[in-house]
Amino acid sequence: MKIEHTLDFIRKLFVDMIPFHQLIGMEIREFTPAGVEVYIEMKPELIGNPAHQILHGGVTSAMLYAAGGLMAMASVINTLAESEDADVLQKRLQNVATIDIRVDYLRPGRGNWFVVTAEVVRQGNKVAVTRMNMHNDEGKQIAQGTATYMVG
Amino acid sequence: MKIEHTLDFIRKLFVDMIPFHQLIGMEIREFTPAGVEVYIEMKPELIGNPAHQILHGGVTSAMLYAAGGLMAMASVINTLAESEDADVLQKRLQNVATIDIRVDYLRPGRGNWFVVTAEVVRQGNKVAVTRMNMHNDEGKQIAQGTATYMVG
Amino acid sequence: MKIEHTLDFIRKLFVDMIPFHQLIGMEIREFTPAGVEVYIEMKPELIGNPAHQILHGGVTSAMLYAAGGLMAMASVINTLAESEDADVLQKRLQNVATIDIRVDYLRPGRGNWFVVTAEVVRQGNKVAVTRMNMHNDEGKQIAQGTATYMVG
Amino acid sequence: MKIEHTLDFIRKLFVDMIPFHQLIGMEIREFTPAGVEVYIEMKPELIGNPAHQILHGGVTSAMLYAAGGLMAMASVINTLAESEDADVLQKRLQNVATIDIRVDYLRPGRGNWFVVTAEVVRQGNKVAVTRMNMHNDEGKQIAQGTATYMVG
Repeated sequence: MKIEHTLDFIRKLFVDMIPFHQLIGMEIREFTPAGVEVYIEMKPELIGNPAHQILHGGVTSAMLYAAGGLMAMASVINTLAESEDADVLQKRLQNVATIDIRVDYLRPGRGNWFVVTAEVVRQGNKVAVTRMNMHNDEGKQIAQGTATYMVG
Repeated sequence: MKIEHTLDFIRKLFVDMIPFHQLIGMEIREFTPAGVEVYIEMKPELIGNPAHQILHGGVTSAMLYAAGGLMAMASVINTLAESEDADVLQKRLQNVATIDIRVDYLRPGRGNWFVVTAEVVRQGNKVAVTRMNMHNDEGKQIAQGTATYMVG
Repeated sequence: MKIEHTLDFIRKLFVDMIPFHQLIGMEIREFTPAGVEVYIEMKPELIGNPAHQILHGGVTSAMLYAAGGLMAMASVINTLAESEDADVLQKRLQNVATIDIRVDYLRPGRGNWFVVTAEVVRQGNKVAVTRMNMHNDEGKQIAQGTATYMVG
Repeated sequence: MKIEHTLDFIRKLFVDMIPFHQLIGMEIREFTPAGVEVYIEMKPELIGNPAHQILHGGVTSAMLYAAGGLMAMASVINTLAESEDADVLQKRLQNVATIDIRVDYLRPGRGNWFVVTAEVVRQGNKVAVTRMNMHNDEGKQIAQGTATYMVG
């Protein structure tokens, strides 16, 4: 199975088969072996602190969780040969599991929209580690995070 | 302002004024100076892994975030005298801010409902630290977490 | 190999073959399948903040790291049958590797001695998670931590 | 007090007045408002896993702890005017306290020497956050970390 087909498959799965992403309005903007970009538009349902009108920190953590998970899947796809059987790959991807995540809330979540990028900092046969950053529409960094995954 | 009135105020705020909690269906079951219990019922919109039909890890982190935040607020209320002016207290509570959170995903999120409890492990004038645990309806531990807060 | 023999082997290894533990004066007080206790006596070389005469936070993290690692090894020993071949076990223990650790500094490290206890909160075939707590000689909690390990 | 004088003062304090740094052989290589570099040479006393002859993970965490703490102090110095009274500054620096640290062990700690760099990712009046990276003499990344500090 070609890498692009697999990425398309995951992209479709992310939106169509995970209704939580639709519920809060999370979208994939970019998804290549080199990087992930997850996007969300601010709306009243996502406000966490009514006094300050800022993004709910639980939405922040959910977005970092999702972006990091996608990047961990991309790292699994990267390490498999293109010739890999589609069923094998799908099974390996289904078994990618988050071990833990840390989120640092660097600035209040003010903005019209937010974008989370992710990168792989450890790509192993058993464990992967990703780093995530959230910025708002003014380019200010709102949050950062690190997550570890079982990938094998 | 009496402690009970303040807790009632926060409880009402949690449900009525933070629409994200309604969006995902998160409820406060218990909220006293000694402990917090936050509850969510499983439903299709909260599924994260369609292959395994388990709770989205982003929902897990959002619940631990919410339960820990409530407990940090309770710790602020605890440290203030009952005679404290209502406006002063409300202002202090509005300024409680999460610094960081760590979530450990201990078991797949299977269950009909989930409950998160929280406790204070450090209660300072400037910084508070809480510990959170999520269990499912069979009493199995799904996740644990630690979070730090600015409280002064 | 009997469990007690294995624990004795690790205990000996901890003191005799890891000179860093001798360098800072870290000792195992208790080491059973159910729990670990690591002890250190305060001395001038371990002071981190000369103005406050408190334990160096790097010593705190090193102690939590060591206690958690011992507990992760105990969890591996627990999951293997007593009949297990000694070489197999030794190889598995050598491959226990720390993935990440979080340390919360709850109170200044004042005390004549400090003790760290550890417990297993997730015991899997591939990944283990431990929780650690440090107390001083007055029973006050100085720090807590969580660590994850590859164990298979 | 001039910034350079303050940095010199901290540098001297780091080596002369914190004997733990001498005990393990940790040195400051660079210390400016813009960045920190902490260095350690491999030696038998720092080995953690006798089977693999790699750096003790407790040394790794202690180095990230020290480098991050120095960077947090540099961030306090940066935010204070040059005209600041020396006693005021010294008092503020003495009260910089680590809230928590996370360390990710990315690769086994093989090498002849190791260097940890640190940068500030949040510079507030009350809380600072730093990121740390450890590399070996071949330029391979061994570990990364994040730490939070009370600074006011």
